Amino acid sequence: MIKNIAITGGVHGNELTGAYLIKKFQKRPIKTKNINIDYILANPKAFKECKRYIDYDLNRSFSINALKEDSHFYEFERAKVIKERLKNCDFLLDLHSTTSNMKMSVVLSKDDEISNLIAKEIKNLHEDVYILRWFSNSEGDFINSIVPHSITLEVGPICQGVLDADIFFKTEKIVKSVIEMLDNNSFKKELNKTEVYDIVDIVDFPRENGEISAMIHPSLIGKDYSLLKKGDPIFVDFNGKEIFYENEPMYAVFINEAAYYEKKMAFCLCEKRYI
Amino acid sequence: MIKNIAITGGVHGNELTGAYLIKKFQKRPIKTKNINIDYILANPKAFKECKRYIDYDLNRSFSINALKEDSHFYEFERAKVIKERLKNCDFLLDLHSTTSNMKMSVVLSKDDEISNLIAKEIKNLHEDVYILRWFSNSEGDFINSIVPHSITLEVGPICQGVLDADIFFKTEKIVKSVIEMLDNNSFKKELNKTEVYDIVDIVDFPRENGEISAMIHPSLIGKDYSLLKKGDPIFVDFNGKEIFYENEPMYAVFINEAAYYEKKMAFCLCEKRYI
Repeated sequence: MIKNIAITGGVHGNELTGAYLIKKFQKRPIKTKNINIDYILANPKAFKECKRYIDYDLNRSFSINALKEDSHFYEFERAKVIKERLKNCDFLLDLHSTTSNMKMSVVLSKDDEISNLIAKEIKNLHEDVYILRWFSNSEGDFINSIVPHSITLEVGPICQGVLDADIFFKTEKIVKSVIEMLDNNSFKKELNKTEVYDIVDIVDFPRENGEISAMIHPSLIGKDYSLLKKGDPIFVDFNGKEIFYENEPMYAVFINEAAYYEKKMAFCLCEKRYI
Repeated sequence: MIKNIAITGGVHGNELTGAYLIKKFQKRPIKTKNINIDYILANPKAFKECKRYIDYDLNRSFSINALKEDSHFYEFERAKVIKERLKNCDFLLDLHSTTSNMKMSVVLSKDDEISNLIAKEIKNLHEDVYILRWFSNSEGDFINSIVPHSITLEVGPICQGVLDADIFFKTEKIVKSVIEMLDNNSFKKELNKTEVYDIVDIVDFPRENGEISAMIHPSLIGKDYSLLKKGDPIFVDFNGKEIFYENEPMYAVFINEAAYYEKKMAFCLCEKRYI
C-alpha cells in the first residue's frame, strides 16, 4: 500500500528544474485524497552555491558506510538526515536533469514490481518517455536505495545552472501524473511488455596522461537511445582524427553529460530488454 | 604595429572550448612569420575544479583596486600575474563560451581602431558572426582592459563543463583566421560600415524576496540578437503566467546565460549601430 510519498529535487544543486519544482510545491502542495507528500529540497547548500555538490555527490552518498560514519562531508551528513526523514516513505520520486539529450527518462535503480508498474504507466500515458534501468555504480548508493519503491526522472538536454520553461512544465506534468496514479491507486494495470534500456557498460573519453584527448563525435552528440554499431564514429580528437566504435551493437545514453566528465564517463552503453 | 599576441582561454574554468584550445596550441603552436604568440590557460585552478571561478570572476578582476591590493582571492592574485605576463602584449584574443545562443560573437570592450578593424574583418571573412560591444560593467574590469587592443570570442550555445566538437573546430577556425590576418598585417582594409550591437541595459529575472520567480519565456529562448518589441512575452512564472516586454524596441543577447543568474542578468538589451 503506497501511502507516504516523497519528492526530492536538487539532489544535485545545479539541476534547477527539480529544485524549483520542489520550491513551487512547498508553497502550493499538490492536492491529494489518499496519500501524503513530503517535498524535499535535497541539497540546499549545493543549490545555494549552484554546484552539483559541496564535498561529494549526494546521489552516491547513501551506502551503508556513508550512512554509518561521522563525516566531514556535508553530503554524508545530509544523507543521514534525509534517510531519517524518509524512514516511513513508501515511494520516492527523485527529480534530475542532464546535459544529455535524454528526453524524459524514467530511471529505475532496482527491480521491484511497484516501481516497474509506475514506470510503465508513465510511458503508457505520455509520449517520448524512455525507461532506463541503472542497477549499480561503483561510487556509492543512490538515494533510491533507502526506500522500498522509487523512480527517478532524468530530463534533458538542459545546461546546469539554468531553468528552461518547456522542460520545467513538462517535468511538472509527469510529476502530477505520477501523484494522480498513486493517489487513485490506478497504476496497477495489466500492461503489455515495454522496452527498457539497461545500462551494462560505461565508455570513458580517450585520455593522454589522464587528460581528455578527444571529444564526442558530432554524429553521436544528441543521439541518446540510438543504436551504436561497429564502425560508427564515437570520438574525434583535437586534431580532427576520428575514433570508431568496435564492439557489439548497443544503445548509447548519457552522451556528454557534464557531471560525468570527472566520473570518467563519456557515455553509457545499454541493452534493450522488455519488462 | 602588432607584434606580440596573447591568446587566453579558460578565464572561466568551466568554459572548456577555450581552455582545451589553449592546451592544444601550447602543444602545437600555430606557425607564424612575423608575430609572437603567448598561449595562456588563464584560470588553471578553476579549470581543474571545472568551475567558473574559485573566489571571484577573473574576468571582473582587472580593475585598478584589484590589481593593487594584496588579496585572499585567488583570481585577484592571478590577475596580477597575468597583467605582468601581458605587459608587452599588443593584442589579446580571449576565448569564451556561453549557454546562450550567441552563435560566434566577437565582443569589443573598448572602442579602438585596430580592434574594430579586426572584428570587422572577422565578420567579413566568416558567416554568422555578430559584433557585440560591451564597454562597461559594475563588477570590475575585463581582462581586455590591461592591453592596448583586444577582442573576445563568445561562442554558444554550449553548456558549462562540456566540449562540443563542432564548436571547438569552429572557434579554432576563427582563431587561426585572426592569427593569419595579424601575421600578414592584412586586416587594415577599407571595409563598409558593419552592424554592431551595443549593450545598453540589463534585465534581471522577476524575483520574490530575492529569489527568481519566473523563467525566460519559451518564445525568447535561443533568440539572441532578435528584436524585442513592446508586448513580446519575455518571462513565464512558475504557474504559467506570462510577463511582457514594455519598453522601446531593443535587441536581446546573453539570454539565459547560466553564469549570469547570480549577476542578476536574465538577458542584456542592445541597440544596433554601425561602425
